[in-house]
Amino acid sequence: MKPNDLPSTPWVLARRAARMNPSVIREILKVTERPGITSFAGGLPSPTTFPVAEFAAASAQVLHDDGAAALQYAASEGFGPLRERIAAMLPWPVDPAQVLVTTGSQQGLDLVAKVLLDPGSRVLVETPTYLGALQAFAPMEPEVVPVANDEHGVLASDLEAKASGARFLYLLPNFQNPTGRTMSAARRDELSQAAQRAGVPIVEDNPYGDLWFDQPPPAPLTARNPQGCIYLGSFSKVLAPGLRLGFLVAPPALYPKLLQAKQAADLHSPSFNQRMAHAVLQGDFLDRHVPRIRALYRSQRDAMLAALQREMAGLGVEWNKPDGGMFLWARLPRGLSALDLLPKAVDRGVAFVPGAAFYAGDAPDADALRTLRLSFVTATVPQIDAGIVALAAVIREARRP
Amino acid sequence: MKPNDLPSTPWVLARRAARMNPSVIREILKVTERPGITSFAGGLPSPTTFPVAEFAAASAQVLHDDGAAALQYAASEGFGPLRERIAAMLPWPVDPAQVLVTTGSQQGLDLVAKVLLDPGSRVLVETPTYLGALQAFAPMEPEVVPVANDEHGVLASDLEAKASGARFLYLLPNFQNPTGRTMSAARRDELSQAAQRAGVPIVEDNPYGDLWFDQPPPAPLTARNPQGCIYLGSFSKVLAPGLRLGFLVAPPALYPKLLQAKQAADLHSPSFNQRMAHAVLQGDFLDRHVPRIRALYRSQRDAMLAALQREMAGLGVEWNKPDGGMFLWARLPRGLSALDLLPKAVDRGVAFVPGAAFYAGDAPDADALRTLRLSFVTATVPQIDAGIVALAAVIREARRP
Repeated sequence: MKPNDLPSTPWVLARRAARMNPSVIREILKVTERPGITSFAGGLPSPTTFPVAEFAAASAQVLHDDGAAALQYAASEGFGPLRERIAAMLPWPVDPAQVLVTTGSQQGLDLVAKVLLDPGSRVLVETPTYLGALQAFAPMEPEVVPVANDEHGVLASDLEAKASGARFLYLLPNFQNPTGRTMSAARRDELSQAAQRAGVPIVEDNPYGDLWFDQPPPAPLTARNPQGCIYLGSFSKVLAPGLRLGFLVAPPALYPKLLQAKQAADLHSPSFNQRMAHAVLQGDFLDRHVPRIRALYRSQRDAMLAALQREMAGLGVEWNKPDGGMFLWARLPRGLSALDLLPKAVDRGVAFVPGAAFYAGDAPDADALRTLRLSFVTATVPQIDAGIVALAAVIREARRP
Repeated sequence: MKPNDLPSTPWVLARRAARMNPSVIREILKVTERPGITSFAGGLPSPTTFPVAEFAAASAQVLHDDGAAALQYAASEGFGPLRERIAAMLPWPVDPAQVLVTTGSQQGLDLVAKVLLDPGSRVLVETPTYLGALQAFAPMEPEVVPVANDEHGVLASDLEAKASGARFLYLLPNFQNPTGRTMSAARRDELSQAAQRAGVPIVEDNPYGDLWFDQPPPAPLTARNPQGCIYLGSFSKVLAPGLRLGFLVAPPALYPKLLQAKQAADLHSPSFNQRMAHAVLQGDFLDRHVPRIRALYRSQRDAMLAALQREMAGLGVEWNKPDGGMFLWARLPRGLSALDLLPKAVDRGVAFVPGAAFYAGDAPDADALRTLRLSFVTATVPQIDAGIVALAAVIREARRP
C-alpha cells in the first residue's frame, strides 16, 4: 500500500492532500455558533452594515435591464464595467486590463499559489499572518518562512536575510489579520526598496484598508512598484462577504497565467453578482456607506478598549489599539496559554481565536501561545461589555495557583 | 536565469504554469462575439430558458426574509437546505453530508485534481473529452491517457488495458461534451464492473443529464458504486450559468479533503446565490421548467439535423443524432481540416469549435482534425438554417481542387 492510499477504497490521494487540514478557526467557529455565545472569534463583518435595500434594488434592476446577460456564462476576466470601476477606485494608475475579478480575495490567494509556487518554494510571510493565506498556499507545498516584525511592520533587514530564492513576500499592511497592526509609510518605503534590491516580489492583500478610523492608511506598497507586486482586494468588508467578490491587480507579465488559472478554477465569478455589485457602486454609494461602517467599528473598538481597561486591571494582560479594521491583538500573562483558556471561556459564553493558529512554520513558541485575536465588529457594545467581563473572569481563575 | 523566470521582472513561475494556456475555444469565442456571427461554437444555454422572473422573486424574498445571513460568510460545505434538496434530487440514496456545493461544477474538477493528482499521475479520459476538465487537471501536471470509445461509450477492455496506476477515469456519460454521445446502460454496467475489478475510481460529470429529449438517460455510474465514484452536478443548464452553482457528491473517505480544498480555494460559494437557487427550487419548479428546456433544445436539434440533411447532401459530411444535451458532432470529408475551415466559416458569418481541441494527449490524428462540435442551443431556428447554409457553402468551396 502506498502512503497515500485510503484503506479499503480505490482512492489514492495526491501528496499535497497531506497539507490540507481543517482550519482550527473553523472548528472553533462551529462551537461559537451555539446560541448564547458572544463571539470575538470570527472575522464576520457586522450584518447591520450590509446594504440589503441597495442590493434588493440592484438585483431587481440587473434582472430587469439585462437578465439574460447577468445569468449567462461570461468572460473569465470579469464584468468590464466593474473592472473599470475597480481600476478607478485604486489610489495609483491601474489599467482595467490588469484587473481580474475573483470569487472573493481568497481565490486570489489560490491563483497566486498555483501560478507562483512549486513544492519547496520559499514564501515569506509576516509573523503572525492570515491563516486563510497559509491554507491557500499549503496545497502547493511551499516552504513558508516567517519574517520578523516590530510594531511598524516587517523588518527590511530580516526580509533581506531571508530573501534568497523567495518566490514572494505576502503582506497585509493595513489593520492586519490577526494583529490589527498597520505598516508605517516609512516602513513601506524601506521594505519596498529592500524587496526590489533583493529581487523579491510582493503579494499585497488589502481587505481592510477602507476600514480606517482616524485617517486613511499610507498608500499600498503596490503603488510604489506595480511591476513587482500583485494586489488583492475585496468587496467583503465594504459591501458584503456573501457575494464572494474580490479582485486582483497583476503586472502584464503575470496576468495571462493568473487568468488561465482562474478560468480552470471556476470559469468566471458569478456574472449576476458582478453586475449587482457594479449597480450598487454607481454614483457615490461607497462615499456615503463606508464612513458609516468606520464609525460603527470605531465605536465598537472603543467599547472593547474601555472594557479591557476596566476589566483586565491587574491581570497582566496586554493589548494593542488598532487604527482600523476588525481585530485587536492581546497577550495573556506569562504561564497562560490561549489555547488552554478557550474551552473555559466558551463555558462562560465567550469565544476568541488563540493566536498560535496564525503562526507559520514550526510549533508556536511560548510567546505565541499567549496571544489571542479579538474581533470587535460582530458583537454589539453590550455583548462586548459582557464578553470582556466573562473573559476577565476566566483569566482571573486561570491565574490562581 | 532559471527556465521559469519572467525576463526583466522579479517573478518566477511555478513549473505547472507551463501547462496553463489559453483555451482554443475561448480564443474562438472572442471572434464569435462579433455582431452578425451565428455561433454554433459556444456551449451557452439559450437565454430564453433563464427563469428571470423566478430569480427576481427569489432574490427579493431571500433579501427580505434573511438578508443578513444571505450576505454573510457561510459554511464551506454549502447552504444546508440546498444540500438536502440536492441529495433528494439525485436518483440514488445520497446523504446530504456527502454533498459539497461548488462554484460551478468547473470548481469540482479543480478540487478533484488538487486532492487526487500528483505530477505524473495517470488520469483516464474519453476520446474526445471536455476541454474544461483537461484545463482543470493540467495545473496538477498529470499524464492524461485517452481511452478508446465506440458509439456506446468507453470500451471496458481498453480501460482494463490502461488501468494500472490510474488515479481515476473521468467520464461524461450523458449527452457528452463535445460529442453529444450517451453511454448505454449495458456499457455502464460493464464499465462500472471493470473499473471496480481494476481498482480505478470514477469521476462522473453530469451537467447535461436532465436535458434528455425522448427518455431519461440510464442511471449514473455513481449509483452503481457510490464508494468508488465522485459525482459532479451543475445548475448551469437547468437554472442558469451566471450564478456559478454546482455540486459534488463524494464518498465519506474523500469528503474532508475536498472540503478542505474548497475552503482554501474560495471559502464558500456565494451564500446569496445558494439561497436564491434554493428558493427557486421550492415546490415543483424544475418539473415545470426543465420540460420546456427539453422541448426547445429538441426542436433546435431537429432544425439542425434537417438543415444538415438538406444542405450537406453530397458533400461527404457525417454527423450524429444526439438524444439530448447541447451538442452535435460532425466529421468533414477526408482531406479537410476543421481548423483550416474555421476562419473561412467566420468570414461567412458562422462559427463552430474544431474537434481537435477536445483530444487529450499527443497531436490529434487526421481523423480528429476532421471533426467539429456544433452547438444547437444558442442560435434560433432561422439562425441555425442560415448558419448551416453558410457552413455548407464553405465546405463546398474547400472541397474544390
